[in-house]
Amino acid sequence: MAERLVVIGADAGGMAAASQAKRMRPDLEVVALERGTRTSFAACGIPFFVGGEVSSLDALVARTPEEHVARGIDVRLRHEVTEIDLGTRSVRARRLDQGDEVTIGFDQLVIGTGARPLRPPIPGLDDRSFVFGVQNLDDAEVLMHHARDIDAQHVVVVGGGYVGLEMAEAFCHRGASVTVVDVAPQVMGTLDPDMAELIVAAMQADGIEVRTGTGVEAVEPGRVHTSDGELPADLVVLGLGVTPNSELAAAAGLELGVRNAIRVDRQQRTSAAGVWAAGDCCESMHRVSGRPTFVALGTVANRQSRVAGINIGGGYATFPGVLGSAVTKICETEVGRTGLNEREATEAGFRFEVARVRTTTRSRYFPGATPITVKLLAERGTGRLLGGQIVGGPGSAKRIDTVATALWNGMRAEELINLDLSYAPPFSPVWDPVQVAARQLA
Amino acid sequence: MAERLVVIGADAGGMAAASQAKRMRPDLEVVALERGTRTSFAACGIPFFVGGEVSSLDALVARTPEEHVARGIDVRLRHEVTEIDLGTRSVRARRLDQGDEVTIGFDQLVIGTGARPLRPPIPGLDDRSFVFGVQNLDDAEVLMHHARDIDAQHVVVVGGGYVGLEMAEAFCHRGASVTVVDVAPQVMGTLDPDMAELIVAAMQADGIEVRTGTGVEAVEPGRVHTSDGELPADLVVLGLGVTPNSELAAAAGLELGVRNAIRVDRQQRTSAAGVWAAGDCCESMHRVSGRPTFVALGTVANRQSRVAGINIGGGYATFPGVLGSAVTKICETEVGRTGLNEREATEAGFRFEVARVRTTTRSRYFPGATPITVKLLAERGTGRLLGGQIVGGPGSAKRIDTVATALWNGMRAEELINLDLSYAPPFSPVWDPVQVAARQLA
Repeated sequence: MAERLVVIGADAGGMAAASQAKRMRPDLEVVALERGTRTSFAACGIPFFVGGEVSSLDALVARTPEEHVARGIDVRLRHEVTEIDLGTRSVRARRLDQGDEVTIGFDQLVIGTGARPLRPPIPGLDDRSFVFGVQNLDDAEVLMHHARDIDAQHVVVVGGGYVGLEMAEAFCHRGASVTVVDVAPQVMGTLDPDMAELIVAAMQADGIEVRTGTGVEAVEPGRVHTSDGELPADLVVLGLGVTPNSELAAAAGLELGVRNAIRVDRQQRTSAAGVWAAGDCCESMHRVSGRPTFVALGTVANRQSRVAGINIGGGYATFPGVLGSAVTKICETEVGRTGLNEREATEAGFRFEVARVRTTTRSRYFPGATPITVKLLAERGTGRLLGGQIVGGPGSAKRIDTVATALWNGMRAEELINLDLSYAPPFSPVWDPVQVAARQLA
Repeated sequence: MAERLVVIGADAGGMAAASQAKRMRPDLEVVALERGTRTSFAACGIPFFVGGEVSSLDALVARTPEEHVARGIDVRLRHEVTEIDLGTRSVRARRLDQGDEVTIGFDQLVIGTGARPLRPPIPGLDDRSFVFGVQNLDDAEVLMHHARDIDAQHVVVVGGGYVGLEMAEAFCHRGASVTVVDVAPQVMGTLDPDMAELIVAAMQADGIEVRTGTGVEAVEPGRVHTSDGELPADLVVLGLGVTPNSELAAAAGLELGVRNAIRVDRQQRTSAAGVWAAGDCCESMHRVSGRPTFVALGTVANRQSRVAGINIGGGYATFPGVLGSAVTKICETEVGRTGLNEREATEAGFRFEVARVRTTTRSRYFPGATPITVKLLAERGTGRLLGGQIVGGPGSAKRIDTVATALWNGMRAEELINLDLSYAPPFSPVWDPVQVAARQLA
């Protein structure tokens, strides 16, 4: 009998592993169990579907169930796994359409259950008829049906993380009046407060109201009660970040780690033999802090899943960790970050120096040059880079990749100064903004 | 008496050193001798002045003579240095306005004489009344006066290097009919032929004629005679690349190196004590080939000059070499390159593997996603990256900085796959194009 690989969750965390393993070992039987109706989708694209830039949810599907089937993967949709039994090496799944349960044995198991939006215990916040998370395309479909049905005019976003801000902009594009409420003193907690302020300014200029330091006390159809008064709300969007879907793994006795994410080693192995995890449901190692961390990013999910797939396929691969690199676009303002911010660096025990410079995205005389602010952190003494943040106009954000690649290689700020980066007036000043910051730091 | 630093040439190669040294040693007397009328200008901006994106040449001046003077630097314009005398440690300069000569002693000397457009010995090509190079702002002024005077309708660009192609586009924007003629079988010799072809296609789509494999036999007012017939030409622009202005240095007995560029060590010292060189007039070490090379780029000039200035100022700095990173934009097509191309890698003695992939600049479903082609070279066996080239739509070119930073750190192609680059649908597919190429290579 063929060896069987079962995959729980048919998005990035699971399917890259499934595809990779199947490619390397065509003899492997691969069964992918998916609770929803779609596979391998780009959840990151949802705000742009809501905002109207992307016309159809199907456009966000990178590989359909049929395409996976054509590659020899047995994809079973509407199968919700309810139990992992390590004793019998099987999973139990509820067939949502039939209403019955099936048991499927495995030799190898990949857990790619992802994460779900945080819903703190605030009265009304769990009411799924008008409080929406956007973690998968089915969520997005429900949200948009609702928004259209009620012709949502007033939208409140609870939480100012990436997804929250992107959703705020999306509804703003649709013509709704949007308020972002965050109990924290700043939005986008992955940035330092001084950088986050630049984003708030851009959002306000676009007509989005941002209320930081404001707690949500209760939510009910039509309104949100906050510590700073009542807000009208035809619908509420969750933007508080996500928590790993690790309950199945925990119930099976697998070790959990930081923020209840499934603990994995460098090969993406969980604490049980032959059981792997990848993506938003599991931990990652942070390359700068050297500590386990939890990041929920499609890029990381794809890479970890590929690593798991190679190992299952009989190869050898390790996942070298994350920097937490991320970019987003709020209105016309681009944002990029990588490595540790001030709070994270302090928590990791670093003492550091900070440089923050404001220059232009292009040569200052070139049409379309816009302000760009670059902030770099470097360890005191060694000068080793710890992190970077960028906020600016078009052409700003992807520069964070230069910082990320430098961080990845343990470069010192001073080394950045002579790094041979490219230059032409439509793209950059002669000293790239990243290097201007490095000069200040050095 | 104060120690005196004399700088020959008041553009990037000279003035960054002058400023740096003066900042570190305010006691230093600094005299900068400049043949032209401007200081610290961005010659790279000239094509955009010609094309109309930049309205005034003065906009291209990063720091005026007055600003340098305010920082304590004695700038003497219209002073053409005619001799360096290492015996008496003095330079002789012709005062172009007065017509006389002066002798100025130095303790330290920085040679920042730059480079000039190549003018091969083709009949008529040396006729400066209608064959123009664009190396400095004075050149550009003369060119534009002429172009306006004669209302240039037919422009021939001889040579398809960066500047040639940028000038071709610039005149195309002005409504002229433009032909680029290059004796080589391809334009832009710093790219491989397969990548250069993509640029030619973009230029042709924009209405620029490109004739490769076509020699220029003679030039006369009104026409250019080529190996492939006659072309009408109201004016001719040189785009054959540049040659270092090293004659003064050679006459003084300084060692020259590759392509007659002034030989320097890692501190930017020439073969004579207390004499430094930086920028387009001197050699650089190529970090990948490990050999001296000649690159004429504003970025490199600024960095080398800063290194010289630190050393003159009593500090210690070394220039760590170049990768030959460069970007440009021809019509809507962006181009980036770094490291060695196939020819250069072969010449340097490497055996290598090549990957070339075509993907999209943004998530394929995101509006404005355009094709991007990424080519990577890696050493056979070790997998170490040797170089990269990118051609694609808006958002393509600056990705070369990621490759450059990876090259700088000696990364292997395989390591790029898991590099934590940033992603969001408006900026990138979930696997960055650079990583897609790395996957193919690995």
